[in-house]
Amino acid sequence: MSVDVSPQLLGDLRAELVERHQQLVRYGLVVWTAGNVSARVPGRELFLIKASGVEYERLEPASMVLCDLNGERAEQSGLKASSDTAAHAYVYRAMPEVGGVVHTHSNYACAFAAAGEPVPCVLTGIADEFGGEIPVGPFARVGNDDIGEGIVSTLAGHRSRAVLMQNHGVFTVGANAEAAVKTAVLCEDSAKSVHLARSLGEPLSIASADIDALHDRYRNVYGQQ
Amino acid sequence: MSVDVSPQLLGDLRAELVERHQQLVRYGLVVWTAGNVSARVPGRELFLIKASGVEYERLEPASMVLCDLNGERAEQSGLKASSDTAAHAYVYRAMPEVGGVVHTHSNYACAFAAAGEPVPCVLTGIADEFGGEIPVGPFARVGNDDIGEGIVSTLAGHRSRAVLMQNHGVFTVGANAEAAVKTAVLCEDSAKSVHLARSLGEPLSIASADIDALHDRYRNVYGQQ
Amino acid sequence: MSVDVSPQLLGDLRAELVERHQQLVRYGLVVWTAGNVSARVPGRELFLIKASGVEYERLEPASMVLCDLNGERAEQSGLKASSDTAAHAYVYRAMPEVGGVVHTHSNYACAFAAAGEPVPCVLTGIADEFGGEIPVGPFARVGNDDIGEGIVSTLAGHRSRAVLMQNHGVFTVGANAEAAVKTAVLCEDSAKSVHLARSLGEPLSIASADIDALHDRYRNVYGQQ
Amino acid sequence: MSVDVSPQLLGDLRAELVERHQQLVRYGLVVWTAGNVSARVPGRELFLIKASGVEYERLEPASMVLCDLNGERAEQSGLKASSDTAAHAYVYRAMPEVGGVVHTHSNYACAFAAAGEPVPCVLTGIADEFGGEIPVGPFARVGNDDIGEGIVSTLAGHRSRAVLMQNHGVFTVGANAEAAVKTAVLCEDSAKSVHLARSLGEPLSIASADIDALHDRYRNVYGQQ
Repeated sequence: MSVDVSPQLLGDLRAELVERHQQLVRYGLVVWTAGNVSARVPGRELFLIKASGVEYERLEPASMVLCDLNGERAEQSGLKASSDTAAHAYVYRAMPEVGGVVHTHSNYACAFAAAGEPVPCVLTGIADEFGGEIPVGPFARVGNDDIGEGIVSTLAGHRSRAVLMQNHGVFTVGANAEAAVKTAVLCEDSAKSVHLARSLGEPLSIASADIDALHDRYRNVYGQQ
Repeated sequence: MSVDVSPQLLGDLRAELVERHQQLVRYGLVVWTAGNVSARVPGRELFLIKASGVEYERLEPASMVLCDLNGERAEQSGLKASSDTAAHAYVYRAMPEVGGVVHTHSNYACAFAAAGEPVPCVLTGIADEFGGEIPVGPFARVGNDDIGEGIVSTLAGHRSRAVLMQNHGVFTVGANAEAAVKTAVLCEDSAKSVHLARSLGEPLSIASADIDALHDRYRNVYGQQ
Repeated sequence: MSVDVSPQLLGDLRAELVERHQQLVRYGLVVWTAGNVSARVPGRELFLIKASGVEYERLEPASMVLCDLNGERAEQSGLKASSDTAAHAYVYRAMPEVGGVVHTHSNYACAFAAAGEPVPCVLTGIADEFGGEIPVGPFARVGNDDIGEGIVSTLAGHRSRAVLMQNHGVFTVGANAEAAVKTAVLCEDSAKSVHLARSLGEPLSIASADIDALHDRYRNVYGQQ
Repeated sequence: MSVDVSPQLLGDLRAELVERHQQLVRYGLVVWTAGNVSARVPGRELFLIKASGVEYERLEPASMVLCDLNGERAEQSGLKASSDTAAHAYVYRAMPEVGGVVHTHSNYACAFAAAGEPVPCVLTGIADEFGGEIPVGPFARVGNDDIGEGIVSTLAGHRSRAVLMQNHGVFTVGANAEAAVKTAVLCEDSAKSVHLARSLGEPLSIASADIDALHDRYRNVYGQQ
C-alpha cells in the first residue's frame, strides 16, 4: 500500500498522540496499558493509534501505528496496533465527522457499564457536555466489528459523544483527539459525581427543556470561538 | 469605558489568579476547564476572572479578563470571559464585603447538589469553617442573574460562605481570592467526609451551642492575627 | 522562662517537623492547614508544634513553635502555636513515653468519627499495627483540657496508638514524630479498607487469639531491630 | 552457603526491584512499608526480596535481600528480609514457573478480602487478565508455611494469578517481577470498578464462553509478541 502523507503532519500527529495518552494517565483514566487514543490523518483514509501492550511511560512517536480504515497496518513498522484497532476503524468508516477516538476502562464509568445503566443527566455539567444521559451500548466481544457497530449505533441515538459499552468500558469520539480526550475526562468526572449522588438517594432530575437550553448554550456560547 | 487602575496592581492580581486556579487543580476540585476563580480589583467597580474554555495548564496572567460589575469586559482583550461571569458579577454587586469568588464542580459537593441536600454540620471542622450546614441554593439556568440571585439569597441565611447550587456545583465567596479558594477546598473535604460517614449510618449530630462556640473561636482565635 | 536547649538539636527537630508535615500532605491526610505534628524535645519539658493557620507549602523550621508542657509558648517568636496545642501538651504531660503527636482530619477516619464507630480489627494489617480496634474517644470542645483528657483516657484502654475523637478527627501518638505519622498513615489506610469492606456487607472477624499473635509478632519481629 | 551468581545479573535485578516497588507506590497500592516485591534469580534456587520495614523512598539496590528457597538469607548482609519472606519462598518452591511475587494491602482488594468475597468477572478487562474471578484464599497467620500453602492451593484452582487472602491482602505471581506487578495493578483496578458497580446494584454477568474467548485472545493476540 502506498502511503503518501506529509511526514511533517504525520510526525506532529504522532507527537500529539503521545501527549494525549499522557493526559489519560494524569487524569487517572487508565492503568498499565488499558486504554488508547487514535486520530484520523486529516483528509486521508488513515488513522494513527497506539501500539498494543506498550506502557504509557514508554510511549514515543514511533509507538503510534498508521492504519487504514479497515484497521490494517499501513506502514512497515514492526509494531502491532492496539487490540482495539478494529473498533476505532469502524468508527472512522461510519462517522466521517469523527477525527479522534478514545477508549478507557475508567473506574466510575466502568461501574455504570458493569451495571448496564446509563449515567443520568442530573448535573448541569452533564447537560452542557453530553446533552442528556451517557448511554450504554451492547455487550460485544473484541476483535471483529461488533464493538464498532455497538458504538456507532448507540451514539446515533444520543447527543452524547461518549458510550459505555456494557461490561467493558468507555469509547468517546470527537472532531479530533483533543475533543475525544476531553469527553473521556468529563465522562469519568460525571460518572463519579452521579455515583456519589446515588449513594445519598435518588438524584433530583433536570427538566428536559433545561437540558436542551444548557446544551445549546454550551455548544454555541462557551469557549473562545 | 475608562479603566484607570495601577498596572502593577492589576498585574499582581492576574498572576495571583493563575496561581489560585493551579491550587484548584492541585486540590482536585476541577478537571479540564470546569471551574473558575475571580477577584475584585480593590477599591474599584471591577473584577478579574478566568477566560472561557482555557485549560488550566495554559493559563497565564493575560488569560484573566477584566470586567465591570455588570459582567461586561472592561478592556480591549481578545479573550471572552468565563461563561459564569454574570454570576460572579452579581455577587460582587450585591455583597460589597466579597473580594473573591470561586466556582467548581468538585465531586462530593456535586453529589450533595444533585441530591438537593445540604452538607450537615457533623464534624467540628465544618462548625469551625462554615458555622453550620453548607446550604443548597435553587436550581437556576446559566447566563442571566438567576444563579447570582440564588447564591446571594442562600448565603444571606447562613454563616457558610459556600453554597451548593442544586444540580450544578459549588460557589464560594471570601474577603479575597485566597479565602474563597480555602472555602472551596474545605467544602469539598467536608462533603467527602460526611458522604463517607453517611455510608456507615446516620452521623451523630453536634449540639448547636457547640457549633456556635467552635465557629466563634475559629473566627477569633485561629491563625496568626 | 529560660530555655537552655542545644540549638543544633532544636534546629534538627524543627527541620524534621517540616518534613513530617509534608508527609501528611503527600499521604493525603490533610488539606490547607487542617492538621499538625508535634515532637517532644528529648529530655526536656518542652515540645515543638506547628504555628496556627500556616499553609503546609510555606512551612519552614521557624514555623515550629517551642512550647512548655502547659502549652505556653517558651520562646520569643512572633508566631502563635497551633490551636490544638493544649491537646498535644496534655498528652505529653500525661504520657511520658510519648515523643510525637499527630492530629489530622483524614477523610475515612473522620467518617468513623462522625458515625461514632471504632474501626474494627478485620484485617491483619490492623492487628499488626493497632492490636485491635481503633477506638472512638468522647466529643470534646477545643481550647481546654477536654480533648487531651479524652485522648489519654481512650488510649489507656486500648493497644491502638490512634484515637478517633467523636465528630472531630484523629490523634495519634508515638515514641517520636515519625512513629506518630506512621500510625496516622496506617489509621487512614485501615479506615479506608474497612469502610470499603462495609459497603460489601459485614466484614469477617479475626479471632482475638490471632489478633494477639499478629500484634506480638509485629512488635517483636518486624523491621530491622 | 556458597552463592555463585553473576554480580552483574544480581545487581540488575536489585535495581529493577527498587523500581518495581516505586511502581507500587505510584499506582497507590502501598503505604509506608506495607507491601513487597520479590524476583527469582534466573536459573538459581534463590530470590531477592525487600528488606523488612524499610520505607519505599529509601529503598536502594542494597535493600534487597538474597534468600534461598527456604526463605533463609543467603548473603552476609546486615538487613533482615521482609516478614513475608516465608510466603514468597513457599511460592517459588511450589511453582517453578513463577519468577516474581508481589504482596500488597491495596484498599479495594482488601475490602473484598475482609468480606471474604471473590472479585466476580463482570468486566471484559477482568476476563482478559484473570480469566474468571479473582479468588479468595484462606485466613492464615504470618510466619510459617500457612500463607504460602493458601496462595498456592488457591491459585491451583483458578486462571487468576492474583489471590485475595482472607482478612489480609493480595498476593500476585508472574513469570517475572514485572508481570506480578502488572497483575497487582490490574487486581486493584478491577476490584475498584467492581466495588463501585456493586453500589449501583448487582453487576450484569458475562457468559463463561465469552470469558474463555476473551482470556484466550488476550493471552495469544495482545501485545507485541
